[in-house]
Amino acid sequence: MRVEIWSDIACPWCYVGKARFEKALAAFPHREQVEVVHRSFELDPGRAKGDTQPVLTMLSKKYGMSEAQARAGEENLGAQAAAEGLEYRTSGRDHGNTFDMHRLLHLAKERGRQDELIQALYRANFAEERSAFDGDERLVELAAGAGLDADEARAVLADPAAYADEVRADEREAAELGANGVPFFVLDRAYGVSGAQPADVFAQALTQAWGERSPLRLIEDSAAGGAEACGPDGCAVPRG
Amino acid sequence: MRVEIWSDIACPWCYVGKARFEKALAAFPHREQVEVVHRSFELDPGRAKGDTQPVLTMLSKKYGMSEAQARAGEENLGAQAAAEGLEYRTSGRDHGNTFDMHRLLHLAKERGRQDELIQALYRANFAEERSAFDGDERLVELAAGAGLDADEARAVLADPAAYADEVRADEREAAELGANGVPFFVLDRAYGVSGAQPADVFAQALTQAWGERSPLRLIEDSAAGGAEACGPDGCAVPRG
Repeated sequence: MRVEIWSDIACPWCYVGKARFEKALAAFPHREQVEVVHRSFELDPGRAKGDTQPVLTMLSKKYGMSEAQARAGEENLGAQAAAEGLEYRTSGRDHGNTFDMHRLLHLAKERGRQDELIQALYRANFAEERSAFDGDERLVELAAGAGLDADEARAVLADPAAYADEVRADEREAAELGANGVPFFVLDRAYGVSGAQPADVFAQALTQAWGERSPLRLIEDSAAGGAEACGPDGCAVPRG
Repeated sequence: MRVEIWSDIACPWCYVGKARFEKALAAFPHREQVEVVHRSFELDPGRAKGDTQPVLTMLSKKYGMSEAQARAGEENLGAQAAAEGLEYRTSGRDHGNTFDMHRLLHLAKERGRQDELIQALYRANFAEERSAFDGDERLVELAAGAGLDADEARAVLADPAAYADEVRADEREAAELGANGVPFFVLDRAYGVSGAQPADVFAQALTQAWGERSPLRLIEDSAAGGAEACGPDGCAVPRG
C-alpha cells in the first residue's frame, strides 16, 4: 500500500499531522508493506525567493490579525505540537518561499533520502533558532545532514529549473485530487484524509484502505493465446 | 499513476516485456505522471547461491528438453528481443540464483538508481559475454556502473540479511495479487497485465487505468468540526 502526503514545510499542521500519521502507522500491523511518499504543495507560491519575514508579522499583515491574535495562534499550535512530542518555537520563526525546499525534496526522493530531508526541514523551520530561510547554504547544510551530497544539492539550488516541473506536477495533482489545503493524505489513490486528523482517524483510514484493496482487473491481448511469460515451470514458447 | 513491474533478471520475457512496456509508455500522453517501480520475483528461488550452469544445460535438465529444443527456444527468444532492438546472446549464457541481484535492486531503489541497475543487470545477463553470475565483484561493478556506491553494494552483498525481507515481501505480494509468472505489471493496484504483451496492450492498459482513476473517498473525524489544515487563506485554529 502507498500513502502519499502533500504538505508544505511552512505548514504547522503538516508538521503535526505527519507525527499523528506516523503514530498510527507505527501501530498498523501491515506497516512493513506501507510506502510513504512526500508530495509538494506551496502555501504561498506567489512569494518571491528571499522575501522572508517573521511569521508573526506575516500573519498580522496577510490575514489582518492583531499581533496578540497571531501570537495566540502560534501558542495554540505549539501546544498541539508539544502533545505529539514535537518542539515548536512560538516566536522568532520566519516565513518565506518554499519552492527551493520542494525542489530539494524531489532530489532527495531520487536519492532515497526524502523522509530524512523533510524531517530536517521541519526541524529547521519549527524547532531551530537559525531560520530555515537563511539562504541556499543553510539548505545545503540541511540536505547534507539528511545524507545528500552537498555539491549536488548546491547545483540543484543554483539551477532554478532543476526539479521545478516535478514540484509543479505534484501541485497540479493535488488540485486534481481535490486538495485545497495541507496536509493531505492519499492512500492507494482510493482514500483521502484532509488535515492533521487525530491518530485514530489515520488508523481507521489505513485499516479501511488495506481491507478494500480491490482485486486486479487483467488486461490481455484478445487476439493472442497465452501470455509470453516465465514461471516456475519455465518460459512460454513464442506464439505464431 | 504508478506502474509496478514484477520481474526476474533471469527471465527473458521480462527483458523483452520491459522494452514493449516502455515503447507504450513513451507514447502515452501522461507519461510524465507515471512512476515505474521494479519488484522482485525469483524464477528459481530454490537454487543455491553460486550454483550456476549454462542456460542450455539447465533447460534440458530441468525441463527435459533436448539440447536442440532448448537452443531453438533461445533462438526464438533472441528473435523476439531483436524485434524490440535488444541484444540477446542465444548461447553461452548462464543461469543461477538471482536473490542477491534483487537485494541490490532494493538498495538501488533507496538510492534512486533502480531502473539504471535493472537495465545493467539485464544487459549483463542477456547481452554481455561475461556471465552476470560471475561472483559478487561482477555485481559490484554493475552496481557502480548504475551509479551506486561500490562499497555500499559490496556491504549489502556481504550481509545476506540486507534487503532480504524486502525481496520476500515483494514475492509475497506478487502471490497475493495472483501473479504466478513474470513479467507482471500492476497499474495503480487496479489493473494487471501478465506477460510480455504487445506494446498496444500496454498502451490500452495505461489509457484505461488513467481514465478510470476513481475519486478519493474522504475519511474524517466524525466527532470533530473542520480539519486542522493550512491553505492559501491561512491555518485553521485548533478546535476545542
